[in-house]
Amino acid sequence: MARAWHLMRRPSGTPVPEDFAIKEAALPELSDGMVRVANRWLSVDPYMRGRMNDVKSYVPPFALDAPMEGGAVGEVVESRDPGFVPGDMVLHMGGWRDEAVAPASALNKLPAIPGVEPQAFLGNLGLTGGTAYFGLLDAASAKEGDIVFVSAAAGAVGSAVVQIAKARGMTVIGSAGGADKCDFVRSLGADAVIDYKSGPVLKQLAEAAPKGIDVYFDNVGGDHLDAALAVARKDSRFAICGMIEGYNEAHPTCLKYIMRIIAMRIRLQGFIYTDYLPKLGDFYRDMGGWIAGGQVKSRDTVMEGLDKTLEAFLGLFRGANMGKMLVKL
Amino acid sequence: MARAWHLMRRPSGTPVPEDFAIKEAALPELSDGMVRVANRWLSVDPYMRGRMNDVKSYVPPFALDAPMEGGAVGEVVESRDPGFVPGDMVLHMGGWRDEAVAPASALNKLPAIPGVEPQAFLGNLGLTGGTAYFGLLDAASAKEGDIVFVSAAAGAVGSAVVQIAKARGMTVIGSAGGADKCDFVRSLGADAVIDYKSGPVLKQLAEAAPKGIDVYFDNVGGDHLDAALAVARKDSRFAICGMIEGYNEAHPTCLKYIMRIIAMRIRLQGFIYTDYLPKLGDFYRDMGGWIAGGQVKSRDTVMEGLDKTLEAFLGLFRGANMGKMLVKL
Repeated sequence: MARAWHLMRRPSGTPVPEDFAIKEAALPELSDGMVRVANRWLSVDPYMRGRMNDVKSYVPPFALDAPMEGGAVGEVVESRDPGFVPGDMVLHMGGWRDEAVAPASALNKLPAIPGVEPQAFLGNLGLTGGTAYFGLLDAASAKEGDIVFVSAAAGAVGSAVVQIAKARGMTVIGSAGGADKCDFVRSLGADAVIDYKSGPVLKQLAEAAPKGIDVYFDNVGGDHLDAALAVARKDSRFAICGMIEGYNEAHPTCLKYIMRIIAMRIRLQGFIYTDYLPKLGDFYRDMGGWIAGGQVKSRDTVMEGLDKTLEAFLGLFRGANMGKMLVKL
Repeated sequence: MARAWHLMRRPSGTPVPEDFAIKEAALPELSDGMVRVANRWLSVDPYMRGRMNDVKSYVPPFALDAPMEGGAVGEVVESRDPGFVPGDMVLHMGGWRDEAVAPASALNKLPAIPGVEPQAFLGNLGLTGGTAYFGLLDAASAKEGDIVFVSAAAGAVGSAVVQIAKARGMTVIGSAGGADKCDFVRSLGADAVIDYKSGPVLKQLAEAAPKGIDVYFDNVGGDHLDAALAVARKDSRFAICGMIEGYNEAHPTCLKYIMRIIAMRIRLQGFIYTDYLPKLGDFYRDMGGWIAGGQVKSRDTVMEGLDKTLEAFLGLFRGANMGKMLVKL
């Protein structure tokens, strides 16, 4: 019997295990055009927290007591569509479960690229790598020579930002929490690393970037955003990607340096990965080249087993991951 | 003997009269290339508050115990430069005083335009009108059909924003404080007006803009900015022009809705009028046409006499002006 995670009630603040349940589901026999997929890798991502609220956003809310959704890589085990045969590896949105039945149109067959593992399509070649690529190069218009500050630099998106920025000839300052994560960020090529758990962000950033910054890639909001405003140079650009500090809380963000937007002509630009789907060709070309050339490496944090999916997801908000958080089935 | 306002000490918070003094100054005999100007109109503008602090910004700080500077329109009374003769009306930065001696290169001769009074070059054809024009049309990329929200809509910049937006076919919601100012904003053509003194901004804005807004022209920051974030539609654009609420205070700006930047792909863009000096030709063409055609009207708040300059300036922070605040000498 297939099993899937259900959202049983809408979380208030930080989700708790009681908000969820794993339930068994008898999947149907295949009709024409349908495919059965055994999932091998599940993605958990911070944006999923937003889908747990009953508010209109850029993705619709999860239905209550129904299988949740999320990025997944799986193997075709049965097919009644001529485009798929057992053994094909596919990327699809039928995650948070071990097995899915889906129309062929909902599946993307993964190309076999030497040296690229299938789960990369959930990370550096997928949502998180693409978010880093389009956010840095388009939303923030980052270019060679820029001084770039990125928060949550040890995370899935942040670690890709660090590596893309270095591949494009920028100076990079990354922020992460704790010595292990800072070492990891340094190993990715960051020119300077800030441990936000060791002291105020602004003081450390001002020391790490004595000339100021041209670009800020924001994954957290809060005091990181304020510090970036404080040291931003003229015509600097901020890509606003995530504010993980705010996802579970109703506290307002208080900014002491927001008025510098005017004097420094700062641009803040919010963005969403899916807006860039028409430009995926550019992303695959560049990112594929950097992965093949060793300029962008993956380091995943892997939990094993469908039962661990919730723990993996909740870990995102405690900073439990280095690189991409994945569940291996 | 000429007289000029001096900054005697740097204000802490809201400036007080004791921070300033009027002093007499014996102006020199003219050497070659110099011009003597009797000022007729002085401009006071919120940005001058920033120059009273000893911090590097987009304009250098005022020196202590020296004549202050500011936009002024005056009449040439003596000239040793072939480009100027007595009677010429000029725009220059030697304000906060009744008479100035300046090199010809620091003076801009005003064209005589039928129906345009010289003080318009301190208002709708000057810094404040230009700030409205470039902020709305360039920094916020506002276009026909957009729903535009503008704060401090009864002020010099805001009243120009309302009229430019209407001239370009936009829907305009203006915010102002008190019934008189709201009537004034309505008389400028605003489709809806919010009296921020009569209740929470967000509630009123949500009612005035049930479909949300595409553009926010921010003159005040604070709860107006937060309300605009709350109702911003997808791909909306904010021109960040001023945050008068913050000029005199060290309080942080607390925003409950800043996370909507991401989901709605909002762009915030800080800007400064002087960045657009190369495009002044566009501004004079369009704004001159709107003024000549009656689409943009001026309503100045005028105080008389050099002694009133400080009172006029301080009045900006109490909202004492409708339209442009000027001092007539």
